[in-house]
Amino acid sequence: MRPDPAAASALTERRDGARQSSLREHNLALVCRAVFASPVPLSRARLAAQTGLTRSTVSRLAEELIRAGLIAENEADGSGRPGRPAVPLTPAAGTVAGLGLHVNVDYVTGRVVDLTGAVLAAATLPGDFEDSDPTAVLPLAGGLAARLVRQAEERGARVARACLSLPGLVDAAAGRLLLAPNLGWSDLAPAAMLGEALPAAMAVEIGNDAHVAAYGIARAAPGRVAAQSSFVYVAGDVGVGGAIVSDGEVSGGRHGWAGEVGHVVIEPDGPACHCGARGCLETYAGRRSVLAAAGLSPTASPEDVAAAVARGDDAARTAVERAAWALGVALASTVNVVDADEIVLGTGFIPLMDQLRPGVEAQLAARTLAGPWSRVSLRAAPADPAPAATGGALRALETVIADPAGWIAPARSATG
Amino acid sequence: MRPDPAAASALTERRDGARQSSLREHNLALVCRAVFASPVPLSRARLAAQTGLTRSTVSRLAEELIRAGLIAENEADGSGRPGRPAVPLTPAAGTVAGLGLHVNVDYVTGRVVDLTGAVLAAATLPGDFEDSDPTAVLPLAGGLAARLVRQAEERGARVARACLSLPGLVDAAAGRLLLAPNLGWSDLAPAAMLGEALPAAMAVEIGNDAHVAAYGIARAAPGRVAAQSSFVYVAGDVGVGGAIVSDGEVSGGRHGWAGEVGHVVIEPDGPACHCGARGCLETYAGRRSVLAAAGLSPTASPEDVAAAVARGDDAARTAVERAAWALGVALASTVNVVDADEIVLGTGFIPLMDQLRPGVEAQLAARTLAGPWSRVSLRAAPADPAPAATGGALRALETVIADPAGWIAPARSATG
Repeated sequence: MRPDPAAASALTERRDGARQSSLREHNLALVCRAVFASPVPLSRARLAAQTGLTRSTVSRLAEELIRAGLIAENEADGSGRPGRPAVPLTPAAGTVAGLGLHVNVDYVTGRVVDLTGAVLAAATLPGDFEDSDPTAVLPLAGGLAARLVRQAEERGARVARACLSLPGLVDAAAGRLLLAPNLGWSDLAPAAMLGEALPAAMAVEIGNDAHVAAYGIARAAPGRVAAQSSFVYVAGDVGVGGAIVSDGEVSGGRHGWAGEVGHVVIEPDGPACHCGARGCLETYAGRRSVLAAAGLSPTASPEDVAAAVARGDDAARTAVERAAWALGVALASTVNVVDADEIVLGTGFIPLMDQLRPGVEAQLAARTLAGPWSRVSLRAAPADPAPAATGGALRALETVIADPAGWIAPARSATG
Repeated sequence: MRPDPAAASALTERRDGARQSSLREHNLALVCRAVFASPVPLSRARLAAQTGLTRSTVSRLAEELIRAGLIAENEADGSGRPGRPAVPLTPAAGTVAGLGLHVNVDYVTGRVVDLTGAVLAAATLPGDFEDSDPTAVLPLAGGLAARLVRQAEERGARVARACLSLPGLVDAAAGRLLLAPNLGWSDLAPAAMLGEALPAAMAVEIGNDAHVAAYGIARAAPGRVAAQSSFVYVAGDVGVGGAIVSDGEVSGGRHGWAGEVGHVVIEPDGPACHCGARGCLETYAGRRSVLAAAGLSPTASPEDVAAAVARGDDAARTAVERAAWALGVALASTVNVVDADEIVLGTGFIPLMDQLRPGVEAQLAARTLAGPWSRVSLRAAPADPAPAATGGALRALETVIADPAGWIAPARSATG
């Protein structure tokens, strides 16, 4: 059969159209990324130089990004130079936002963050969700999320996407939680269980809470990697989570489950762990273990432990020293395997940082093979009451920044 | 000062020349890689389709690669089809070769491998190099290497480059060995210490022996990644080395020191390790530890241990069970941190594989958090008396395959 020349030509046209449209998408993303990656506002001329696009293409694309609420014109930079003043472009404030949600063993928390990194809405519900019913807890998180979305909308912003973090193994591609040992949850599709309160069209990705928090800690702002962006992250909640971060990217390993430093073995016959094994780091340095060893109530806080140590309480001091020793042993094993030179301790470890440091550093010094050539530095994560919620909001925004055309298209059809 | 128009034009010409030459280098590498990456011989037409180059460009570049001895024409594939028979291209046999050298605690070994993966020359010198003098041992390795190079030359091949593997921490970029605990060596530039016997112009890179062996295990042939190319490798010599391999690439971490599974902590107060710490995997599963626990001579072999277990020797069985238990604990910690689903045991563990397997698998099943969703498989490395030497030869060849122009240029000037 000979091809119909008219049909072939239409196909060619459609192909060229597709190529042009994907070129536009590519260039939109290029300009958008450049504005977000820059620590200072960029003029259209500098954007053209950085992206290799012509000045007029940059202007047209920038116009589109401004109309979509993704970037904004800063104050004109007259600064005494002759000629037309440059109008630098920056991330837009208060327009497009991301929602981060975090369900943990003792709270549900959420926050809405805009493209400048400003928090537009935040809330936390304390609770006791150990071995809880996900069909009760997830709608609670959904209701909290819906209130935060409304608050952000009242301030004039639109929430583009959400990221729900959970303390466990996640199959992000399939949107499933496989296991959250401390919640007692397994094999769920949690996004669909958030309930009716959230806008049905809102995309909700899910993630491991330590991975998502570490992603956020490795960002200076939405779309911008921090200066120190290669580290091992360890979070001290009821469970001990972790992540391996290289140049701002969280290592997933084969299935996205890398970084479980909380289940590195300290003593093979040590205390029984929620995961079914014995002697995991979590059984020495998880919050409940430290509180029990310190003789404090299971609902006491890390700050209470720090205060008890400060006032000379022997049990509290011994409990913290044991946690520091175990953290140091687990981190030495981890550093020997992944070769990291920076460790960031987060959440419940932050108030105990000064008290943990000597014990952790002693084990690292004694046990890392490369110690003499590369001192491993230890720092506390930045103070943030909800790092996994912040990280989730940043991750939601990252998707928008990386694919502005994907945001613009439905936004257009939604507004007519 | 106004620019001289003639000078500006010459500069432009030179620039265009440089651009053309780098285009030629790029395309040469493209064609070369494609021939090596293919498990079957490729016709020029298939090469053109795969690389996107024109048929005539492919023919010209293939001619250059054939003249350089990198690829060869296979038998014409007439196979009854009409028209001019296709002449498939394959890696050349017996022409260009790589040299791998390995200095370990109890031997120096080397092999020369050609571009088809055939071993052209191989030799091993047994010895006892624990706490040895590098100025005596490295010239021994250099002499061995020179003999292997001569043997390969007598068979008509030219050795392009070498890779020297050592059991320790290596700064590959600086060409320095930082520490080899079991050799008792530290802070050396080993390539320069191989002595006068090796051709002075031969480039010698250095590498950690487990990394280099794992690189080779992840290759089906020079320049071709194996089907199973993501795994954790653990080698059981006097020291226990390791590597994390993802899609054929060995993870380096921040400084190239990742994968030190031998120094994952098993029991924090366990036996003293050569590295200065206590309770490292190496102190349970390193060869000398297993031999001592089995009541065998320190010079006995892993095969001797396997034989003792097979004939019902209690001490040998207990020693192997302890090594298996420790390997399982260390690998569970490792899998929890890096999320791997395949483990390859090499060198001294291979003869003990059947006896190690139940103990290793029991610990992995009990201790890997993701166990129920992803069974970690365990296999023995392919039988190879010198995997780090083989891997080193493949690594040397990889450099030639990735940059054929870099090989052709000096080869041309050497032959006039």
